[in-house]
Order: sequence, then C-alpha cells, then structure tokens
Amino acid sequence: MERRALSRRERPAKSALSREAVVAAALGILREEGLEKVTMRRIATALETGAASLYVYVRDTKDLHAQLLDALLIDLPAPKPGRRWRADLHRVAEAFLHVLMRYPEIARMTMSNHSTGPGSLRLLDTIAGLLLEGGANVRAASWGVDLVLAYTVATAVEHAEREDDERLLDDLRQMVVRLDKSKHPHLAMLGLELISGEGLERFRWGLEAIVTGILTAPESTSAPGRARR
Amino acid sequence: MERRALSRRERPAKSALSREAVVAAALGILREEGLEKVTMRRIATALETGAASLYVYVRDTKDLHAQLLDALLIDLPAPKPGRRWRADLHRVAEAFLHVLMRYPEIARMTMSNHSTGPGSLRLLDTIAGLLLEGGANVRAASWGVDLVLAYTVATAVEHAEREDDERLLDDLRQMVVRLDKSKHPHLAMLGLELISGEGLERFRWGLEAIVTGILTAPESTSAPGRARR
Repeated sequence: MERRALSRRERPAKSALSREAVVAAALGILREEGLEKVTMRRIATALETGAASLYVYVRDTKDLHAQLLDALLIDLPAPKPGRRWRADLHRVAEAFLHVLMRYPEIARMTMSNHSTGPGSLRLLDTIAGLLLEGGANVRAASWGVDLVLAYTVATAVEHAEREDDERLLDDLRQMVVRLDKSKHPHLAMLGLELISGEGLERFRWGLEAIVTGILTAPESTSAPGRARR
Repeated sequence: MERRALSRRERPAKSALSREAVVAAALGILREEGLEKVTMRRIATALETGAASLYVYVRDTKDLHAQLLDALLIDLPAPKPGRRWRADLHRVAEAFLHVLMRYPEIARMTMSNHSTGPGSLRLLDTIAGLLLEGGANVRAASWGVDLVLAYTVATAVEHAEREDDERLLDDLRQMVVRLDKSKHPHLAMLGLELISGEGLERFRWGLEAIVTGILTAPESTSAPGRARR
C-alpha cells in the first residue's frame, strides 16, 4: 500500500507485466522513436522492470518484431466480403504494404516468420473472405491468401533493401539502351517498357495479375502439372 | 621471359587479373567450399595477389555476390519460345529457384540488387520470350518477367530464412485447429487446406496462377485501377 501511495500511476507497471504490456510498451517506443530504439532494455525501462524479466513474455527480438507487426495489423481495414471485394482486396493489401514499408526490418522478418497472432489472423481471414467472394475455390483461397501476402511482403522488402533507387534505375536504363537485338531479341523488343511504371503502379498491376490467376486456378492440384506437360 | 620460364602456369594469374578472373576464382571457391568461404582474401590467395587489388574489379561483397549469381545463371536452361512455352517457363523458373535455394545469401541479395550481367539478361530474355509466346502483351511481358523472377526469389528467401520448418508447420497446425469460427469464419471454413501442400507444389501452383494472371492482364495500365473502383 505504501508503494502504491508513492506512485502516481493508477496501475503500477510491475503488476501489469504481461505479453500484452510488453508489446504495448514496444509499440509506444516504435511509434515515438522508431524501430531501432525498440530494444529489450528500452522496453524494460518503460515498464520499470529489468530486461531479463521480459524474456518470460517475449522469446527474442524476432518474436518481439512478430508481436509488433501483429499489433500494427489490428488497425488495418477488414472489409466484409461483398460486391466490391476486388477493390477491398486492393485496399487491404495496400494498407498492409504501407505498414511493411514503414518498418522494413519487420517486413524482412515477416518473410520467414508466420505470425498467428490476432492481427495476422484477422488479415488472413479478411483476404480469404474476399477471395472466396470473388469465386476462388477452397484450395485457391487457401493458397491464394499466402500468395497475396507473400507478394506484398516481398515488394516491401525489395524496396526497403534498395539503397539507391535512382542508381538502380540508371543502371537499368543503361542496360535497356545497350541491349543487343541479336543476343536478347525479346528484351530489345520490349525496350523501355521493361522499366516503366513506378513502385505502387507495378504493385497494383502485379496484385491484379495474382488475384486474377488465383481465381482461375483449377480445383485439383495436379492440373498445373498437367498443363506443364 | 625469365618469369614465364619459372612459372609452370601457361598464363600467370597476375597477368590474367580481370573482373572475369575474379568471378571465375570466386565461383571455384563457391563450388568447392561454399559461399561463406568466398571472401576477398580467399579469392586473392587463389589469384596469387593481394585482396586490395580485387577492389578494382569488384566493388564490394554485394557486387561479388551479384557477379556470382550471374555466372551461375549462365548454366540455366534457355529454351526458345514454342508450343511448349508454359512447361518451359516452369522449367526455367524451377531451375532458377534451385540455384537460389542452394545459395540463400545470394538469393537475399538478389531481392534488392538487379543484376544486368549476361547471365541475368539471358534469363530475362528467355522468360520474356516465353511470356510473349503465351500471348502476353508488351506491358504484361515486361512487368511479368519481373513478377515471375521476384516470386521465385521471394520463395527461395522465405524457405532459406525459416529456421525450423517443422516447428512452423506445428504452429500453423495448432492455429488452424484452434480457429474460432465466430471470429475467423473464412479461415475456419478453409481449415487444413490452409497448410496443405509442400514447398515445390505450392511454388508451382503460385507460378501457374501468376503466369495465367500475366496473360490476362489488359494492355492499359489504368484498367486494374478501374477494376478496383
């Protein structure tokens, strides 16, 4: 009681220590100071505890990042399936892309770490619902969710890891201009269209292609194999 | 002349020092000892020179990795467009995937670094030709090449960065079994199909969806936008 009277907080941080509290503190630091400041030590300070106590709730930095992403995903739009399913799917994927591009380190981690937290499940369920509404069969919706999310994550990582977009584009432009028609006839024919479009335009185009492909996928898995014979 | 008589080599390494020689030496070390042994120091030893001399030919490790990948790509199949274009496209993409999965560090680097070396151009030209043969329009073939390659690279990186496939699958299975139908109705409906299929089967399915989507993409860029209204 004495301790409580000394503190001006309603609920002392120590008694509130939990996985949720750790993630909430991390999220606060992330939003105010950026991802590189989200260290176990910094979170421990915010929660008025020692860094060692946190490991009861969060396995490691990778786990922490996964939890952070999950918390960020809770704010994404989650439209119910309906007539505007295609526009809604683009909207959700772009919102996801936006979050990932803001935190490239989290995006990188996401490539290998599938979160099963509430935010991730909500996102998965939303996209599954929209694909089913669009007419995807059970397999196509199941595997299609993964494809849509993996494409979005890969796009974010690709952009995040590029150190110099201008130099890359210059290199590519040089490449296109110097194409040898006799050696690379198809690239030479495509020419500058190879490097046309900016990031978001390309992302949308690719997502549209992927969604269309998912909807036309046959029910049986052996079909693509057959088509390849 | 005297030096030449002393050496048992036809062409002493020193006089052969070039970008090609550096990459060839790196490739030899890669094949015999693995990527982690491909250091500037080790390459310099192989070429009987100092590590500092190499930086004239190779900018940094990232550049070296890009050159290595390019050299590896020269061996990929490069079928000419024809009636079997779809099977050929799968064959080329799978061969590319195989190379990337063998060298995950190179795959990771490839996400952000577009090589314009002869091996990469050959791969790009091959895929562009196959997509055009399949009926893709100029924009779809141009942007589609990128989509096919980015999908393949992302698949390789995703698998490479997973530390524990078994644990991941267990986590996902637990997630599916515990799905709350009232909260995540679409996921609950899809059930175990969400985690069905092994890596290569999923890769093929996704590639098939992507190729189909590329072929049905409209010529105009504004169309996907319109479809989203």
